[in-house]
Amino acid sequence: MTVKKLLIRNAEVTDAPAGVPHYIYIEDNKIVFVKKTLPENFDFADVEVLEGGGKLATPGLVNTHGHVAMTLLRSYADDLDLMDWLQNKIWPVEAKMKPQDIYWGSMLGIYEMLRGGTTCFADMYAEMDEVAQAAAKLGIRANLSRGLIGAAPNAQEALAENKQLFKDWHNYDRGQIRVTLGPHAPYTCPDDFLRQVVDASFELGAEVQMHLCETKGEIEDSLRDFGMTPIARMEKIGLLERGVIAAHCVHLTEEDMDIMAARQMRVALNPQSNLKLASGIAPVPALLKEGICVGIGTDGASSNNNLDMLEEVRLTAMLHKATTYDPLALPAAAVWKMATEDGAKVLGFKNLGRLEAGAYADIVLWKMSGPHWYPRHNKLSLLVYAASSQDAETVLVNGKVVLKDGHLTAYDEEKICAETAACAKALLER
Amino acid sequence: MTVKKLLIRNAEVTDAPAGVPHYIYIEDNKIVFVKKTLPENFDFADVEVLEGGGKLATPGLVNTHGHVAMTLLRSYADDLDLMDWLQNKIWPVEAKMKPQDIYWGSMLGIYEMLRGGTTCFADMYAEMDEVAQAAAKLGIRANLSRGLIGAAPNAQEALAENKQLFKDWHNYDRGQIRVTLGPHAPYTCPDDFLRQVVDASFELGAEVQMHLCETKGEIEDSLRDFGMTPIARMEKIGLLERGVIAAHCVHLTEEDMDIMAARQMRVALNPQSNLKLASGIAPVPALLKEGICVGIGTDGASSNNNLDMLEEVRLTAMLHKATTYDPLALPAAAVWKMATEDGAKVLGFKNLGRLEAGAYADIVLWKMSGPHWYPRHNKLSLLVYAASSQDAETVLVNGKVVLKDGHLTAYDEEKICAETAACAKALLER
Repeated sequence: MTVKKLLIRNAEVTDAPAGVPHYIYIEDNKIVFVKKTLPENFDFADVEVLEGGGKLATPGLVNTHGHVAMTLLRSYADDLDLMDWLQNKIWPVEAKMKPQDIYWGSMLGIYEMLRGGTTCFADMYAEMDEVAQAAAKLGIRANLSRGLIGAAPNAQEALAENKQLFKDWHNYDRGQIRVTLGPHAPYTCPDDFLRQVVDASFELGAEVQMHLCETKGEIEDSLRDFGMTPIARMEKIGLLERGVIAAHCVHLTEEDMDIMAARQMRVALNPQSNLKLASGIAPVPALLKEGICVGIGTDGASSNNNLDMLEEVRLTAMLHKATTYDPLALPAAAVWKMATEDGAKVLGFKNLGRLEAGAYADIVLWKMSGPHWYPRHNKLSLLVYAASSQDAETVLVNGKVVLKDGHLTAYDEEKICAETAACAKALLER
Repeated sequence: MTVKKLLIRNAEVTDAPAGVPHYIYIEDNKIVFVKKTLPENFDFADVEVLEGGGKLATPGLVNTHGHVAMTLLRSYADDLDLMDWLQNKIWPVEAKMKPQDIYWGSMLGIYEMLRGGTTCFADMYAEMDEVAQAAAKLGIRANLSRGLIGAAPNAQEALAENKQLFKDWHNYDRGQIRVTLGPHAPYTCPDDFLRQVVDASFELGAEVQMHLCETKGEIEDSLRDFGMTPIARMEKIGLLERGVIAAHCVHLTEEDMDIMAARQMRVALNPQSNLKLASGIAPVPALLKEGICVGIGTDGASSNNNLDMLEEVRLTAMLHKATTYDPLALPAAAVWKMATEDGAKVLGFKNLGRLEAGAYADIVLWKMSGPHWYPRHNKLSLLVYAASSQDAETVLVNGKVVLKDGHLTAYDEEKICAETAACAKALLER
């Protein structure tokens, strides 16, 4: 088989001054070099050339937590009290969802992510085969889990589905899709069920993703019912012996953070979701000080309400300056690393999230043509503090061009929007 | 003279269900009607028709605080300590600015605002005639003031410039431009200078805009030097007898808020700037409870770093849910009102900020075609929680189309970007 060869020419990069064009050469799914000049003997035979003039090349954004099919519920239930929102709006409508709803909701959400420069995402939901099919169809990288409500009547069935998902999809397309186990949260999973999850994770060699320490109430209930924090309880159960992706982590004690550091837990922040649902603000500077690997996520579109990672990057950078009264708390470069290289580590993808030789070619070309891209004193600063996700113009995942000139290469976007609108309408009438 | 007549057809509005087209009819600079059906006898003679299919019509956003020419310094000095930022970066470079720098910085910033659905802005800077020329050229509505550093050697000269600005530009183009007096801040203006400002404001019939209570340090210094808060000091000086637009208001006492309510002061929030410069989070729910009129602003592009009002709207909605642990703290409709109708009141524009008969025709048509606009359960929720400023496609100010299909109608955008880039380069080399 011939190796696919791709050359991006004239693109700018963040760590060179404005106006200096670079060549990015990709063979198969990896970056071979990023250089200011082409090697003299460079052979153009069979090389596809992508014009990068006026564009900024960066690694793709990694969305470390979400429920992509929930785009179907975008704008359906906002400005409500948490329990009113869950019990009277979200859960009843989720109970009526069919596999095709999950499929089209996922197609819409993945389209939105690619359109905004996100090349990799994490997911926890039901009917995960549909989500995997959508991810494979549109060519995005993903870490998928079946959400497991251990206290629900279908807990065993769901666990079996998660195991099957692992067998069917883990390492699909040379690792473009990974599968994890998805125990939903400490408050929805009894101890004995969580022990089953630990057993399954050892049996399969699977890691775990879980909502942890999202609200004050969750901590208070855990202290009341178990006499310890959710993190301490997970440690006692043995769940933390596995690689764990902990989503949210808004309310933590010093002891929690010590356990997290010792167990090398990885954190998926969801800053905007935590604000919108009034959960609070995660102690990010403290987590970083403990040496804990922190990535950023959007959460589902019913608590955000978009899957715009650049918005989350900016919000993360902004929030912690104010909470610490320190304008140097989280500089642009630190937050950008969280959203790319560290996000990839959080999701268990190795060799990802850097624009350099040897890394997997998940790349975004940002069109620097809007007024907000002028003047160009510092490109990384422009990207983190001023750019729009809609500036993402061309997107590569694993060396393949999945978005070009703002449009999906694999599927008709209008069909995705129309199908999703139809599913949403039918769902509410069901 | 023939009256200009304009009909927007098939546009959607926020307070009707999705898919219901409306007609918006404008004569001269005012909205005549917003209706689902055209009157039977509607006369199309001399009526320009604008197609609004697939677009959401709303009032334009009002940016209640900023320094538009500072777009020239976008990305020039980020992630620095406040005093390092001001003393070693911002002030030295501002001292070298020439009138043409102010003009092109303003052209870029106004282009950016119109491109993002902002139809009206407030400004405080030097060389304000250049800012007014740029506003008039691109057709945006504005409330302009000369920034007055009362403690500076040129204080009297600046005050004279501000008075002249009022004479030259106040009520320009039937009120499209208003002029206010711009005492910079309590800590840069001695009492006797502020008394001169009060005299000037009575003499001209001019209102005042001022930075107030932005940082903790400002309050501490005021208590130390004057034995009272900045608000109490302004009350004592008599400044609050005039209409005052108070920018920031992050750190306030209960007594401050009582004075503000009694004096009908209007507040210009700058949520993102306050986060980025680590100033803090303004007590917005408390201000609203006191019945104080609150608008939203971007501040200058060196502390934000864009002039994206939709981003500020979203951030305002999000922040206060988390700080109050109440997801109902600031619903989408309340924040949208702050950014439109209340923002107009903050800046002293009457009959503005509502999409209804009799209001001035400052209107944005938002293109609802991206993935983030699907499905369409609630359009206002989509706009506030999911949309992008880049969705603003067509913009009217005072009945005139100033942006069409995403492009300025009055000026070449590429020239603006190129001139600004050249000014920024020359400025740093000067």
